[in-house]
Amino acid sequence: MPYERVAVIGGGLIGASLALALGTRRLAGRLVVVDPDPAARAALAERRAADAIVPAPDDAVFAADLVVIAAPVSAIAPAAASLLPRLGPGATLMDVGSVKAPIVAAVAPRVPPGVAFVPAHPLVGGERAGPAAAAADLFAGHVCVLTPPAPGDGDGPTFRRAADLWRALDMTVEIMTPAAHDSALARTSHAPHLVAFALMAALGRGGDGLARYAAGAMRDMTRVAAAPGPLWRDIFFANRAAVVEAAEEVLAEIRRLLDQVAAGDDRLLAELTRLAARRRALADRPGWAAR
Amino acid sequence: MPYERVAVIGGGLIGASLALALGTRRLAGRLVVVDPDPAARAALAERRAADAIVPAPDDAVFAADLVVIAAPVSAIAPAAASLLPRLGPGATLMDVGSVKAPIVAAVAPRVPPGVAFVPAHPLVGGERAGPAAAAADLFAGHVCVLTPPAPGDGDGPTFRRAADLWRALDMTVEIMTPAAHDSALARTSHAPHLVAFALMAALGRGGDGLARYAAGAMRDMTRVAAAPGPLWRDIFFANRAAVVEAAEEVLAEIRRLLDQVAAGDDRLLAELTRLAARRRALADRPGWAAR
Repeated sequence: MPYERVAVIGGGLIGASLALALGTRRLAGRLVVVDPDPAARAALAERRAADAIVPAPDDAVFAADLVVIAAPVSAIAPAAASLLPRLGPGATLMDVGSVKAPIVAAVAPRVPPGVAFVPAHPLVGGERAGPAAAAADLFAGHVCVLTPPAPGDGDGPTFRRAADLWRALDMTVEIMTPAAHDSALARTSHAPHLVAFALMAALGRGGDGLARYAAGAMRDMTRVAAAPGPLWRDIFFANRAAVVEAAEEVLAEIRRLLDQVAAGDDRLLAELTRLAARRRALADRPGWAAR
Repeated sequence: MPYERVAVIGGGLIGASLALALGTRRLAGRLVVVDPDPAARAALAERRAADAIVPAPDDAVFAADLVVIAAPVSAIAPAAASLLPRLGPGATLMDVGSVKAPIVAAVAPRVPPGVAFVPAHPLVGGERAGPAAAAADLFAGHVCVLTPPAPGDGDGPTFRRAADLWRALDMTVEIMTPAAHDSALARTSHAPHLVAFALMAALGRGGDGLARYAAGAMRDMTRVAAAPGPLWRDIFFANRAAVVEAAEEVLAEIRRLLDQVAAGDDRLLAELTRLAARRRALADRPGWAAR
């Protein structure tokens, strides 16, 4: 049993999926999920997501040996601040936020002696939200990034134990610094999400009738723009500098290709062919196959 | 039987799928597919896509009452120019190119008396290519746009007969001017494709390791960037002015949202929430459901 007593703070898509995954694989001795929203608690209860489902942290949470904060990015540091003073020696606090450096900066200095802090980011999600969309197999086949607050933290038994938990959910675990994580994810996720929202905004400029002519490309390129606004406002703001840098790169690449289109520059063909070959190579990855 | 003798010029994804769809539903008395590529002909033969599969237009093609040119955009006008003088009275020439105004401008003046020209664009496709990826149900549930060369052409029996053929494949038929089609498709398809290629280019700036952290959003947003380079070079160049205009709108929308991110402008939340609601409303369309 990797952890005897696990508490998950937040029963949204990630928290509820984690609870279901731990329960299905019997990876937690006793599991409690905390969510202040009665509708979320009802959905969690209906899915039998945990041994206990409570509206606020209670003694079972404070006695847990693993507490996972699965809250929106802006809520993680406040939740950690209120939980940390009450956790016992040997406890591990983990968060699963999509931005790491600001969370690590806010939380790490508050971690008391004897308590470990493991910042984590399982690279899963999508446009769905809430416990009704949760799935025990949400994590399988994907990457989970751990970002140790200090260099060397990642080598210790606490991080190894946390990494083993994610590996038990069939994830590949990677160790990165918080800043490297935020820079990489700005490029691979956050800026692309901003582009997806912008594509919806541009489509809206064409009037209501235009969407009628939107087919598979637009459907797939805007899928994640259906995600909750507050969640993405949080991520964009928390990772502001890296998102701006990554989005500027996307803008520059669109501009570069568009200039070739406008000029009828036939180097465009070699560019498109090279990019298509790279995309097809990525399709060989698990989960990336053409559908 | 909508047409007695049908010839499809080009056995790629669209041409082969059309042949399979017509054959499966017995919508053509006799069906011939023309493709100069021996490998394509072998794939078409293996899939039993037509009654005859030939390397070049022959008497069966010239005697057809419906000839469909399913070639890359840059090859359509040359193919039409060589076919038109040899088609008999009562024949209909159709093309299925993704750009309409330049094709109509090049082909319509060459259409001899007694022959009809029906420019069509079934809004289907994707990143797959070639007859091996063809499917008889490729068209079902999607829109097919017909762009009459002259106002009023769309009201005649020739266009009604062509429209009925696409409807028999479970498509919704829309009549638009060639220019309106090209402007709409630049926004709903061509500019988004350019963005997909640009996202691949931006990902490449980050080095080979970065793709490891690309999850579902990048997968779906770059899916169509795996499409053949020559096909998209053709479309971008043929629809240059409209693609530039549409891509400038996307650039402006990315810039607008990015400025709000950079400034920490909390109007961003209302924007994202509004755009997400619009995207979720689109998800109610057939084929657009969240996956």
